[in-house]
Amino acid sequence: MLAAAREVVRVCRELATCSEEPGVTTRTFLSPPMRDAHARLTEWMHRAGMSIAVDAAGNLRGTYPGASPVPPLLIGSHLDTVPHAGAFDGILGVVLGVALVDLLGGRRLPFPIEVIGFSEEEGVRFGLPFIGSRALAGTLDDEVLARTDKAGTSVRDAIASYGLDPAGLPAARIDSALGYLEFHIEQGPVLDTLGLPLGVVTAIVGQSRFELTFTGSANHAGTTPMSARRDALAAAAEWIGIVEAEAVDVSDLVATVGRIEVEPGATNVIAGRATVSLDVRDAEDRVRQAAVERLLAAAQRVAAKRRLSVDVRERLIQPSVAMDHALTAMLARAVERSGSTVHRMASGAGHDAMIMAARTPSAMLFVRSPGGVSHHPDEAVHEADVAAALAAGQYLLEDLTRHG
Amino acid sequence: MLAAAREVVRVCRELATCSEEPGVTTRTFLSPPMRDAHARLTEWMHRAGMSIAVDAAGNLRGTYPGASPVPPLLIGSHLDTVPHAGAFDGILGVVLGVALVDLLGGRRLPFPIEVIGFSEEEGVRFGLPFIGSRALAGTLDDEVLARTDKAGTSVRDAIASYGLDPAGLPAARIDSALGYLEFHIEQGPVLDTLGLPLGVVTAIVGQSRFELTFTGSANHAGTTPMSARRDALAAAAEWIGIVEAEAVDVSDLVATVGRIEVEPGATNVIAGRATVSLDVRDAEDRVRQAAVERLLAAAQRVAAKRRLSVDVRERLIQPSVAMDHALTAMLARAVERSGSTVHRMASGAGHDAMIMAARTPSAMLFVRSPGGVSHHPDEAVHEADVAAALAAGQYLLEDLTRHG
Repeated sequence: MLAAAREVVRVCRELATCSEEPGVTTRTFLSPPMRDAHARLTEWMHRAGMSIAVDAAGNLRGTYPGASPVPPLLIGSHLDTVPHAGAFDGILGVVLGVALVDLLGGRRLPFPIEVIGFSEEEGVRFGLPFIGSRALAGTLDDEVLARTDKAGTSVRDAIASYGLDPAGLPAARIDSALGYLEFHIEQGPVLDTLGLPLGVVTAIVGQSRFELTFTGSANHAGTTPMSARRDALAAAAEWIGIVEAEAVDVSDLVATVGRIEVEPGATNVIAGRATVSLDVRDAEDRVRQAAVERLLAAAQRVAAKRRLSVDVRERLIQPSVAMDHALTAMLARAVERSGSTVHRMASGAGHDAMIMAARTPSAMLFVRSPGGVSHHPDEAVHEADVAAALAAGQYLLEDLTRHG
Repeated sequence: MLAAAREVVRVCRELATCSEEPGVTTRTFLSPPMRDAHARLTEWMHRAGMSIAVDAAGNLRGTYPGASPVPPLLIGSHLDTVPHAGAFDGILGVVLGVALVDLLGGRRLPFPIEVIGFSEEEGVRFGLPFIGSRALAGTLDDEVLARTDKAGTSVRDAIASYGLDPAGLPAARIDSALGYLEFHIEQGPVLDTLGLPLGVVTAIVGQSRFELTFTGSANHAGTTPMSARRDALAAAAEWIGIVEAEAVDVSDLVATVGRIEVEPGATNVIAGRATVSLDVRDAEDRVRQAAVERLLAAAQRVAAKRRLSVDVRERLIQPSVAMDHALTAMLARAVERSGSTVHRMASGAGHDAMIMAARTPSAMLFVRSPGGVSHHPDEAVHEADVAAALAAGQYLLEDLTRHG
């Protein structure tokens, strides 16, 4: 298994050279290097006995036939990357799918396996993620297709320019499947801290994003006594402390203020305005909603106490998406039988499985991210962890063969 | 006296139209509208019986002869403004000086009076304040003269372009004077809050300015548990709270964080770096220094507790400048005799009196700023307060006549 794992890592690293910029890995939706990545994967998929197609959304889809023409098991993740990415985010899940098929050595399972390399998940080119999996889920509507990138090209035109036919999009939709399985690096430090190779994902967390503006009064930093100030940055700072304390208090909840801008923003002028972002995530929607309510109330309280006003703008509300209970239980059993510890955890980031879960029972397996490094050239995986994922995958296929 | 005060306000408002931008008041060092302001003031100074010169630094200097050729009493403030300024910051002190001479109605005092309209105090054009008063104090050195504005013009070239001779700068220096008196709007809310027209300035506060950078680790806002974070913005926010609490605790001290920049500065990314400014002021240098020491130690403590580093860069250390004890006592007596309440206070902002104090006994009188508004078109003065300042000035001249 370690040899197969070593090959998976080698392929991922080789595919990382398919990039829009030499020396780093940047591979966005329908960019020229995506064609190159498809070509290399196609070759390998062919060798593993799969038939390959690229659907109208640019997803690479390799089908390994089953003993009978029942709905397939889907195994997938995405092939696009953020700018200056690592070599494993997304693509590891595609390569692992092909490796699992390859390890079958031509043996037919009762069901087909379709390995999918989604064309778009990161949202880099069009500012909207999951274009690839939305096509399979059938939620790629006209509004999305009309979105334009920085060059003014629409999604629809980008598809046509790549040599694909937007009219074929309805045919890209999955009608029925046995289920969807996604392997993905954790992109966080939890498994590494616990010293565990794998994590069974129970849900993709829900997210709430807001933008708040505290408005006080810009004034001279030398001539305005402390008691006469209406300092917007001091108010924002107090509130940022409350956000952090709330998240520390509530188990598993994460809350982040990652952005702040103050006006006028001069050393010798008290800030009159401070705009901050808020990002709150939890696997339980009620927990997240309650935290958001407390935080927005706290912002009002801080502002009122300081004779400031605060303006709150909602930016994103995205409910939590649970993974399929039965398939996830089966995945956990496979992890256990393969000899790895079962650690159940929520995913703090969005993944294609979130979109696929609306169409078919979905499950996700996280592979440890050494140091929690993600979206960075230093992103890595341990070969032994990849081997553990392969082993778990094999046990899952076995179990599905028996009970699917 | 109210008629004279009304005239002072009228002249200030008229001079506010001498601007680089129509409709607002922006009049920087040696700009074309400065020539216009000089012309209008010169006319009025002539009528008041003064002889006028513009020195090599562009200062407008009007001399009203005394009964004997002893060193003059200097009365001055600055004629330049910040961009989009009010009508009274600086120029009120010059116009009040001319008005006091005018009110003498030709009567000779035992000493001459020189009214000075400083060419530069705000530091807008060359990023360095007090160019005008530095010329009188003899501290306009080659380094200052070589400084360039945004267009690449040096102070020296700007002087020559205005038609003045930089070689004449040594002659601009004041060799001896009876003292220096400056009237200036408070630029803060203290007198307005107390309901007082005038404030006797005891000292110009000392200032310490620093820039601090907290460095943690940029990470995914969804996948990084609270306990694994090294959030630079959360650290900066905690420290900003400490800065505010320190200043509230220490009577009269003011401390401000007016600027903050975070990297990468995205809603869904934990901040890896936060750079903040610090501005601390107090009339007592020891108080200021002790506060700065506590705040910098607190920054180290906050950083260490959160596994971050903090880098501290000193930007400005400027000791407090005391006004002359005897002249200030005489000014306070004059305020009292004129019927106004004597309120002693430190100036939180720098003024020409700070530079002049190194050459000659200096005193400053603040005139209430309604609402504390400063560096803004809404900046105003009450005519009655201007009348109170004129009355106090007249008593001071009387006192100097008897005891000077």
